[in-house]
Amino acid sequence: MKKTLISIVGLALTLMAGAQVKEDFVTAPNAQSGKLYPMVNSEGRVRVQVSAPDAKMVLLDIGGVKYELTRDENGVWTGESAPQDEGFHYYQLNIDGANVPDPNSLYYYGASRWGSGIDIPAHDEDFYQVKNVPQGQVRELYYYSKVNDAMRHCYVYTPAEYDRNPQKRYPVLYLQHGGGESEQGWPQQGKTAQIMDNLIAEGKAVPFIIVMDNGAWRMPQAPQGQRPQGQAPQGQRPPQGAQGQRPQGQGGPMGLPGNWADGFKRTLFEDIIPMIDSNFRTIADADHRAMAGLSMGGMQTLSIALPNPQMFSSFGVFSGGTVTLEQAQAIKGSNKLIFVSYGSRELENRRGGNPAEDIKALREAGFNAHFYVSENTAHEWQSWRRSLHEFAQLLFK
Amino acid sequence: MKKTLISIVGLALTLMAGAQVKEDFVTAPNAQSGKLYPMVNSEGRVRVQVSAPDAKMVLLDIGGVKYELTRDENGVWTGESAPQDEGFHYYQLNIDGANVPDPNSLYYYGASRWGSGIDIPAHDEDFYQVKNVPQGQVRELYYYSKVNDAMRHCYVYTPAEYDRNPQKRYPVLYLQHGGGESEQGWPQQGKTAQIMDNLIAEGKAVPFIIVMDNGAWRMPQAPQGQRPQGQAPQGQRPPQGAQGQRPQGQGGPMGLPGNWADGFKRTLFEDIIPMIDSNFRTIADADHRAMAGLSMGGMQTLSIALPNPQMFSSFGVFSGGTVTLEQAQAIKGSNKLIFVSYGSRELENRRGGNPAEDIKALREAGFNAHFYVSENTAHEWQSWRRSLHEFAQLLFK
Repeated sequence: MKKTLISIVGLALTLMAGAQVKEDFVTAPNAQSGKLYPMVNSEGRVRVQVSAPDAKMVLLDIGGVKYELTRDENGVWTGESAPQDEGFHYYQLNIDGANVPDPNSLYYYGASRWGSGIDIPAHDEDFYQVKNVPQGQVRELYYYSKVNDAMRHCYVYTPAEYDRNPQKRYPVLYLQHGGGESEQGWPQQGKTAQIMDNLIAEGKAVPFIIVMDNGAWRMPQAPQGQRPQGQAPQGQRPPQGAQGQRPQGQGGPMGLPGNWADGFKRTLFEDIIPMIDSNFRTIADADHRAMAGLSMGGMQTLSIALPNPQMFSSFGVFSGGTVTLEQAQAIKGSNKLIFVSYGSRELENRRGGNPAEDIKALREAGFNAHFYVSENTAHEWQSWRRSLHEFAQLLFK
Repeated sequence: MKKTLISIVGLALTLMAGAQVKEDFVTAPNAQSGKLYPMVNSEGRVRVQVSAPDAKMVLLDIGGVKYELTRDENGVWTGESAPQDEGFHYYQLNIDGANVPDPNSLYYYGASRWGSGIDIPAHDEDFYQVKNVPQGQVRELYYYSKVNDAMRHCYVYTPAEYDRNPQKRYPVLYLQHGGGESEQGWPQQGKTAQIMDNLIAEGKAVPFIIVMDNGAWRMPQAPQGQRPQGQAPQGQRPPQGAQGQRPQGQGGPMGLPGNWADGFKRTLFEDIIPMIDSNFRTIADADHRAMAGLSMGGMQTLSIALPNPQMFSSFGVFSGGTVTLEQAQAIKGSNKLIFVSYGSRELENRRGGNPAEDIKALREAGFNAHFYVSENTAHEWQSWRRSLHEFAQLLFK
């Protein structure tokens, strides 16, 4: 019954949409090499195609809506969604009741699974394209965590000039993903390296190191004894996924008391920061250390970094809450930057609290505080790409 | 008809297998975080599970055989394969005629697509596990290619000691993937960093840099005008896939005359090697430069590196051909190492030529030549992981 209702709704939407679909589709940048689909058009519609000759029904599931595809005589199903917001969206196909990734798309980790994602062309997408400018590196590395008694996995962005200035030391931003995401989020969906390389090339940001680690506080539970290779105590043999595709959450402080923020705080303070300061040419003091994050990562920034001015002096909270004058007063002497942002569609639905007012109060109280709104985007990666792009231009200056 | 036949065969095999399935399955290391399936047992069988309540038939497609899954009352389908060889295998599901990735698995690029892969426990898998030993880095970087007038993408492994010895310079191995694969192959399925970190920690290999680039000679063809963002001339805006998941082949010398080897040769000699020598602390001479590859990458090693002793002195050919005495005599003075390997199952089926005899002849002629056979593995990644493990212990000594 529910499915029937969904398909009726989906069908209705498809028909409504179908009445006015603009036929200027091009292959999306998230299509696999040589694949024609998924496609996007200038309205922001997503069109997918899959061969499923024996299927009774195939749906495109994106933005919380399911759209029915149409079967041709060869059993190839094709259909499109209503217009989507600019930027990145997760999606999936449903084939006779099975939720599966689109076999034509590239895959991303989010919503607690590896699955399909698609970029709707954005008016401002130029800032996160790979361009012929000096290129930094995204370095994948493992390190031993005492807190978790396990090998952990992270990515470290180093600016293009890093290897050419062996005597120079750099400030560091600890940049966290959201719930259901992983250390993959910022280097992949977040386009961190492209955003930074382009900003630095334009002289709009100073070069700094960015650490992208896993802030998950607890390993997803699996039946007892079913994941011998995935459990932290067997740190010698972590999951052997594709490089950068290891099961997420293994890095979390399993079995530690306290809430998730405290859990990640110990890992960050006792393992990650010392490891980074000993393996990279950092300026290892609070003035040159920042933390930022999206959603859960923003909440972690508020709960872990903000109350510890001896460790951090700059803070970025993307779609993850706000900073009150009371919180800020506690760190007044040492604070260098407070940045809060949201997607405009989040603010439309927001109940209680007013981050814009909070930041205004901070500015009036003399703080270097900034509030940014990503226009016409929701709790999604385009809001966070833009937030990093804005935040990075203010940081360590 | 064909499908019917396939399912009859699949059913038969499933029943045969079913008669003697050993119930000691554990979650495979290639399962996504928190997922129970895919599983493997001590016989090397792969068991998958997917919810497809409205499907008529669901198949597991692995090792060239399709196995029918069984539906339970909730529409959840489960089933397993016959025993597979040790090591890594690509696989997919077929749901009512649609070939799709297993939504529970991690994804890998091979067979010209991103899809599911699974590791069958191997008696010798310890050599490619992540261990608590000094860890190298796998660095992802982009660079501009004059040959292709495009930004290209590669991975560079630097040993753990690299950043701690700012004055020390290192030899370099250019390590190539096979056909239908990409620069992702060696860092992901190949476990290059784990193999090297473990060997170096045990003192069995000397530290060296490994460059893993894309040897594809031609970009997969897409309908005219359908991939404006994927075409090399628009190097300013390469495909915006997840980091490290950009459509493969974009780096190939599109539009260049000559065969694939010549095409990649120009890119390697004119773009990649100069870029590496200028951005990393290499020992930039033939004595300290090696090339190796698997399958197509091995053929590229034979056709690009072997005839150019002024550029390379050591060669590894994994499941990609052999080196005759005549070929070797031409580079006798400068040659330091020739390594040829195959999976034993490849040799079982091999017609014509005898690499073991060829290498024997080279040794008798005074060459430092080695022949290695990976027991009970085919033209697959376990053969190539083992080949790198053997080759790396002989290289640059």
